[in-house]
Amino acid sequence: MPFSYLQHLECPRCHATYNADTQAHLCTCGSPLLARYDLEAAREGFTKEELQTREPSLWRYHELLPVRAPESIITLGEGMTPLVPVPRMGESIGIPGLYVKDEGVIPTGSFKARGAAVGVSRARELGVKTLAMPTNGNAGGAWATYSARAGIKAVIVMPEGAPMITRNECAINGAQLFLVNGLINHAGAIVARGVQAHGWYDASTLKEPYRIEGKKTMGFEIAEQFHWNVPDVILYPTGGGVGIIGIYKALRELQSLGWIGKRLPRLVAVQATGCAPIVEAWRDGKLDSQLWPNSHTVAFGINVPKALGDFLVLEAVRATDGCAIAVDDEELLQAQARLAAHEGLFACPEGAATLVAAERLRAEGWIKEDERVVLLNTGSGLKYPDTVQIDAPILQPQDDLPGTL
Amino acid sequence: MPFSYLQHLECPRCHATYNADTQAHLCTCGSPLLARYDLEAAREGFTKEELQTREPSLWRYHELLPVRAPESIITLGEGMTPLVPVPRMGESIGIPGLYVKDEGVIPTGSFKARGAAVGVSRARELGVKTLAMPTNGNAGGAWATYSARAGIKAVIVMPEGAPMITRNECAINGAQLFLVNGLINHAGAIVARGVQAHGWYDASTLKEPYRIEGKKTMGFEIAEQFHWNVPDVILYPTGGGVGIIGIYKALRELQSLGWIGKRLPRLVAVQATGCAPIVEAWRDGKLDSQLWPNSHTVAFGINVPKALGDFLVLEAVRATDGCAIAVDDEELLQAQARLAAHEGLFACPEGAATLVAAERLRAEGWIKEDERVVLLNTGSGLKYPDTVQIDAPILQPQDDLPGTL
Repeated sequence: MPFSYLQHLECPRCHATYNADTQAHLCTCGSPLLARYDLEAAREGFTKEELQTREPSLWRYHELLPVRAPESIITLGEGMTPLVPVPRMGESIGIPGLYVKDEGVIPTGSFKARGAAVGVSRARELGVKTLAMPTNGNAGGAWATYSARAGIKAVIVMPEGAPMITRNECAINGAQLFLVNGLINHAGAIVARGVQAHGWYDASTLKEPYRIEGKKTMGFEIAEQFHWNVPDVILYPTGGGVGIIGIYKALRELQSLGWIGKRLPRLVAVQATGCAPIVEAWRDGKLDSQLWPNSHTVAFGINVPKALGDFLVLEAVRATDGCAIAVDDEELLQAQARLAAHEGLFACPEGAATLVAAERLRAEGWIKEDERVVLLNTGSGLKYPDTVQIDAPILQPQDDLPGTL
Repeated sequence: MPFSYLQHLECPRCHATYNADTQAHLCTCGSPLLARYDLEAAREGFTKEELQTREPSLWRYHELLPVRAPESIITLGEGMTPLVPVPRMGESIGIPGLYVKDEGVIPTGSFKARGAAVGVSRARELGVKTLAMPTNGNAGGAWATYSARAGIKAVIVMPEGAPMITRNECAINGAQLFLVNGLINHAGAIVARGVQAHGWYDASTLKEPYRIEGKKTMGFEIAEQFHWNVPDVILYPTGGGVGIIGIYKALRELQSLGWIGKRLPRLVAVQATGCAPIVEAWRDGKLDSQLWPNSHTVAFGINVPKALGDFLVLEAVRATDGCAIAVDDEELLQAQARLAAHEGLFACPEGAATLVAAERLRAEGWIKEDERVVLLNTGSGLKYPDTVQIDAPILQPQDDLPGTL
């Protein structure tokens, strides 16, 4: 049995195919490329039962990941993050079957570790020595981390406004970090010029085909954690959109294997009202989005004014009868506090946005009371200390605690 | 088969026994109490094979945990953290078989989640409504987190100097947080007076018997991850010492079950030169430690001038032919950076201290080249942003990246 059933790369827009065993970036038509597997052979050679005794990391699905050889894997044990039932929170918003897929419990504290683990492993397997990427913070931290482990040099360009802690991650892992007085699209343009000038491997979102393969494992895990009886709705905080595209891709692959049935979860793209290009395009029935001017939100990871994979996000939402919805910063910060106080789950602001969306969709009747609903929390709230207000009394050693709290 | 084989509580100093099904704190002799199980019955009713298909959380060992009923469990999916081989780092210090047990990959980003998950679950099962504790930061964050999920009110007292992010955790999870202008022993005294005055459940380190039961699961996991062929050395950053006591307890329990053989890993207590009471007592052949005056270290979690369980730490070290060793702040910060740059593993300062200790013990010949050595990284470096120096150039959108890095 092959370790990976990877077959070729395919353009989802013009359907051109490419060799998967050389370094590849965009299609000549400008679209991202997607990895395709020999799913017919995999249906014979890969069974659900085998998974049961495998280690709890995303590499348990190696047959449907792009790394050819086990020894190419660069891993810190990422994946199989907890699926946490949050019934108290759920009951308070009329969805007793509410769950959080908690991507805070992963190396680097963010789901970006998945894309980086698979992307860096495959980059190293294909001979990459230096990679470059723009980032809103967490992806840069994750790629710096896995690049260090792989012995690859990483050039990271990050907006000055990105979360401070992600700078630390890049710096301590030995990446070449640059801050830009601008947004992620400015960082992206700087990286594009650098890649062009210096021949580095472009690891920008969807400009290499393997980050999404790491992200799709969230879809495999959700299906496995629900014992292959997929939930009704998955809400995803959507910036670049690789996660939601990946989950959709994973679900389709599982259908091809015959591991799940025809019904798919409705995928919901959640954005911030200060940066909602996907929501606007979905509402207007467009196939792709327009650049969102003067975008802003405290949920920094979803401050992406125009995503390269916008058309794929919109396809995933429409093909699953999902929807797209925008929430206010104030609402999502309140949701972050409510989720922690009710359930002890300290989500990142992006993750908290999905709770606001679920509550609204339930109120509108779009989510039914008996449905099983998954909020994707893309990272730990610990990486965003500025979103929490602290007001704690200071005691002297001789002071006593008050009896009424 | 019972869900838990918990039998009674025992004083490890005077061997008095207590009922395990009422709230209990210290022995009348002043010693902490330890949970004892019916290991003879467990040897019949609990097998290694059953573990293979259980979920990857610490609750997979529920037979040897103190929670009586499955529905009492308060969980966020904690446990089964990665055991990460770090061969490049290992070869550079002459220990190719070097591993890091990475407790950063757990809810709350610190091993304290284990003690809190089990301690809070059992507290709720025993009817606790309000608990109080002093903390150097991470334990408070973890107990606040699990208390929120359990619906228990938590009163947390923390030194002003404790890591900022742990304040956020306490606050957002709805705990009553107090800061003290002093060290953890001052916080402890304030809590002791509060407990006395207001009848709260005292959740201070080792003043309730179940936190250690959560921590011991690190020992179970290390043994299971090495396929029940335990490593030669485990190095542990030692403050209150509950982790090292717990690992020793776990290993002894596994011996009683017959799951591991006679040989135990040598346990090494690693402290900071600015706070090394255990090291001093070990060197002087004492059974317990003296309060360390004016203690200080950047590794805040091991700034514990006098631990209640010091005699148990010393016993664990001596019974396994281990040792105790102190390292400088400067060395441990350098080790933190080296581990990240070599392996992409961003350890907390406490965890990084164990790397310095391993290197020194190897140089002295105490660790042999062919031994399998585990560094316990007790938490994520992300919770300690102040330990990383960042020096990143700032670009304007029109700027280009340099070609030589």
